[in-house]
Order: sequence, then C-alpha cells, then structure tokens
Amino acid sequence: MKSFREATAVDQDRQADLDPQWAVGDKLHGGYLMAVLGRAVAATAPLPHLVAMTTTFLRPPAPGAARVEVEALREGRTAGQYRARLMQDGTPCAEALVTQGTLDASAPWWARAKPPALPAEEDCLLLPSNQPGSPFTVHLLDVVEHRLDPACLGFAAGQPSQDGRVAGYLRLADGADWDPLSLLIATDPAPPVSLTLGVTGWAPTLSLTAYVRRLPAPGPVRVVMHSNEITSGRMDEVVEVWDAADNLVAQATQLAAVRV
Amino acid sequence: MKSFREATAVDQDRQADLDPQWAVGDKLHGGYLMAVLGRAVAATAPLPHLVAMTTTFLRPPAPGAARVEVEALREGRTAGQYRARLMQDGTPCAEALVTQGTLDASAPWWARAKPPALPAEEDCLLLPSNQPGSPFTVHLLDVVEHRLDPACLGFAAGQPSQDGRVAGYLRLADGADWDPLSLLIATDPAPPVSLTLGVTGWAPTLSLTAYVRRLPAPGPVRVVMHSNEITSGRMDEVVEVWDAADNLVAQATQLAAVRV
Repeated sequence: MKSFREATAVDQDRQADLDPQWAVGDKLHGGYLMAVLGRAVAATAPLPHLVAMTTTFLRPPAPGAARVEVEALREGRTAGQYRARLMQDGTPCAEALVTQGTLDASAPWWARAKPPALPAEEDCLLLPSNQPGSPFTVHLLDVVEHRLDPACLGFAAGQPSQDGRVAGYLRLADGADWDPLSLLIATDPAPPVSLTLGVTGWAPTLSLTAYVRRLPAPGPVRVVMHSNEITSGRMDEVVEVWDAADNLVAQATQLAAVRV
Repeated sequence: MKSFREATAVDQDRQADLDPQWAVGDKLHGGYLMAVLGRAVAATAPLPHLVAMTTTFLRPPAPGAARVEVEALREGRTAGQYRARLMQDGTPCAEALVTQGTLDASAPWWARAKPPALPAEEDCLLLPSNQPGSPFTVHLLDVVEHRLDPACLGFAAGQPSQDGRVAGYLRLADGADWDPLSLLIATDPAPPVSLTLGVTGWAPTLSLTAYVRRLPAPGPVRVVMHSNEITSGRMDEVVEVWDAADNLVAQATQLAAVRV
C-alpha cells in the first residue's frame, strides 16, 4: 500500500499515477485529487505552502496515469496564484485555483474559533472500509482512519439525526503526520452530512474550497463538518480541522449536489 | 449614476465598462467584479443562475473598458462549470470558477441555520461614503446602502471590538430588488472584519467563494460576517446573507491578506 506521499507523487513531467486505494466506491476521493493538484503546484511555485484552493470537479478520473497542467497567474512576494488542471486521456477531470504562501506554527494574532467538543479518540468509532450492508467499499478508510463521534452514526442503525453534523478524529494509516497537502484530504471527510440525515444517494461535489491556516502539530486531527441547508438539490458543507495542539489548521466549504 | 444592471452590463463581444462608482477608495469592489464576471457567464450558459463562484484577484483593474473571457468546462443537465477571466489591456485582473444551475424560492428540504438576531433596520447606522477622518471615499456606499449594527462600529470611536463580526442591512440604492448576481455584492460587505478589530490597513482578498442558495425575496438583505482567525498575515471571513423573508440566500467565505 502506498503512503500518502507516494500516492500523490507528481514527476518532473507533471505525470501522476492515480492510486485506486484513495477512493470511495469506484470514485477517487476529491481531497486526494486536490492533493495531487496541490503537489504539482508546489513543485513549481517559489512560495512553499498551499494556503487556499478551490477545485471544480468535472469528470471522475480513473485510477492510473494522469497529468497536471499548472499555469502561474500571478507570483507576488507573499502570495502566488495558480491554475491547475487534472487531465486524463486529453480530457479535463478537475480544475483548481490555488494560492501559495508561507505557513508557520505561530500563535494567531486574533482568534474567535474554539476547538470542538468531541468524545475522547478511543470512544469514537473506527469506520470500516467494508460496512456490512453498504453497496460499495470505501477504500479510502484503509489509508485514512476515521474515528467518528458516535453521535453522528445514528443513520447506520436506521436512526438518522437532524443535527447535520459529522465529527471525529482522522489519522493517516501510514503513520505520517499531517502536512498542508494531506490536510486537503481531511477537508473532505466521510461520510457526507446528507447520509447522516438519511439520504443514501451519492453527493457529488460541485466545488470545494479549502484554506490551510497553519502547519499542523503531530498527532490526529479533529474534523467537524456541518451543513447549513439542503435546498433545491444542493447541500453546503462547512469543515473545520483542528490539530492535536488545539489549533485551527484548515477550513473548508463545499457545495454538493444531493437528490432528496 | 448607473443602476447595478447597467454598471455590470457585458455586451455581445463580452466587453464591460467598469464603473468607478463601485469602488472602495481607488479599488473596484471585489463583489462588483464578481458580478461582471457572473453576468458574462450567464449570457452564454444554458442554465439560468449562478450558484457557486470562486474568484482569485490578480491585479486591480482600472475603471473603464475590460473584457471577460468565458470557457465552458462542463455543461450538464443540472450544473454547468465555467472559467471566467477579467482582462484589461491584455492583462488578467481576476479569474473565476463558476457553477451555473437553477435557483428557486422553495422551502429548504432540511435546514439548521437560523436567521441572525439584528437590531431593527431603522436602529442600524447608515455608513457614509465620506467618513470624517477616513483616508479615502467608499464610493460603493452611495450605490449599496449599508446600515450596520451599532455593536460593530466601536472602531469608529477608537474602541475596536474583539467580536470579529460585521452585521447589518444592505439595499441597492437604485431601489432594485436583489438578484443572484447582485447578491455577490452582498457577499463582500464593508468594512472588513479586521477594521472592527482595530487594524486600519487594507485587507486585499486573495480568494472569495460565494454560493447563491435561493432566489431572494424583495426588500433588504441582512448580512452577517465573522472571522475565525487572523494568523500568519491572513484572515478568513465567513458571510451569511438572509433575505427579508428569513431565508438564507447566499453564503461566502474569503481569505484576505492582513498586515498586523
């Protein structure tokens, strides 16, 4: 099994080898594709870290060979702006706008957000990649351990919640600590909020925006995702990612299509 | 003075005439530029409404002639994806990823968000475009009336808040009701949260993501913006826009550079 770093590698010709392990059913995970795009940008950008990224998903790529096209839109002293496209067989699969900058681990100048109240990690439930009764395998869960707050899991017992919240602890199964690129995976956790509300269908992401705010401390991250509304067949999901030292390390928001 | 519709018009050759009235100091307002880009996309897209848009700001355009380049990335039955670029004198000024879809005014299938608690509109304070002591004129405030919750305005009396919140009522001064494109203006309200915290410098947007959730009811919108953190010279701002019928009509998040 490849590590996150190996699975998202992009060579000098911007060729990637998309790894079937980072998938939900037969679809490669959005956060994984974002990390491949982000790694290709980082390879060319003078500034070291991805700080913002919006990705539009066009067509699901298959595992295997793919290429990332990167165009610098503006390179400044403290921020660089890039467009990145994931191409497979001459077809665009995803397009992203990426902002590069410099992250550190300093204390915030000002903060209002509070770390989430979650049960202890050992009291959360490890999601299996093969859930009994599930119509597909969530291969991603074998490389990214999700331990979810039991309060989110009523849907699995036929008792969906009305909270619209998914929360838990995430760790990379290869033992690696989180970094600005792997945090993109954490900004798109499983399952979608819609499933916790009892909507079993696929919730394809239309657009996902992630901000990385800080270099994460070692250890698991806590992820809290909530939706505000499901309206006209679309759901928003807002995510905060907190590191083991109680720092907000990433934020995200996505709009997904939901058939209700 | 041009109406919003006139000021954001894009002709058949995708030429716009950027209007100096929609500016903060000598910089055209981000939400205004987003609306120009969105109008150019809507002119070519089969689906009627902008539902998601992320814009990266590259170089501030000057008032006057500009051109919008639009490329369709994927056109599906319920969602279309586009790239739009604002060009001036051959130079890209902003690039956006836009999702088109169909909005309606139906009740949400599920909702968790609650309308904001704000003082009555008449108890909020109309921001003047020429604030005594301000180093520049906020021309935008003569076309978009901002009536702010007095609780946000301590900074103007030398008493900055630690709340990290800006909230108030917005109306188009030309009397027009809000629509999916003008709501983009409301997703980038004045002033930035940093100013309410006592940081007087410019807070240029690196990337702004807006979702339009519903066709708005007539009347003013209420806008609530808060930041989670200012860290490493960057600030997030999260915005909710509610219509006069207590519906969430738009959401946004932006990352801005702040010098503290």
